[in-house]
Amino acid sequence: MESSVIVWTDQEVEVARRAFDSAYERAITTLISNLQQQASELSSPESVWQLHDFLSIQRHGIEGRFDFRLEGILFVFASLVKEGLLEPAELQGLDQEKHAKVMAMSRF
Amino acid sequence: MESSVIVWTDQEVEVARRAFDSAYERAITTLISNLQQQASELSSPESVWQLHDFLSIQRHGIEGRFDFRLEGILFVFASLVKEGLLEPAELQGLDQEKHAKVMAMSRF
Repeated sequence: MESSVIVWTDQEVEVARRAFDSAYERAITTLISNLQQQASELSSPESVWQLHDFLSIQRHGIEGRFDFRLEGILFVFASLVKEGLLEPAELQGLDQEKHAKVMAMSRF
Repeated sequence: MESSVIVWTDQEVEVARRAFDSAYERAITTLISNLQQQASELSSPESVWQLHDFLSIQRHGIEGRFDFRLEGILFVFASLVKEGLLEPAELQGLDQEKHAKVMAMSRF
């Protein structure tokens, strides 16, 4: 996808790591809150299996998505911004080109 | 496994169905209670994935086990008695041979 080489400074990697960790924590916190709500409403076998299906999908999505390899991280950030799990301001410290790429991709 | 034919009267099938449904309801109630307890203690990603693993195993076990086909039902009852999900008294109405088979298998 990327033909030009993207260079990361140590400081940028730190910013990226922090932003990534914060978004991951938010995703988990949201998931826990959803699970607790659904668990409190369980009554039938079907409701239990629905909870299981929901959790299977969420786990698959989170485990597939939160991948910190730098070559794909701007795309990950874009999807997190789009979904409200990451604020653009948390990416301050990345150079202008990286920041612009994230914002552009987040609008798709 | 069974070389002799086991004959079921309509009344016995009714007794079996009622016992089966009661045990299933107990299994689900116990599972819901466990899930609610675990959900209330969720804090980390690992705890969420553990809950998912637990629920996957429980679902697989329950769906595999609660099979009402008469040819295997005495074995199902034995395992339910063994695990405390069914009281021998709930099988009253089955003839003595069926009852004895369940109780014998439940001791393995």
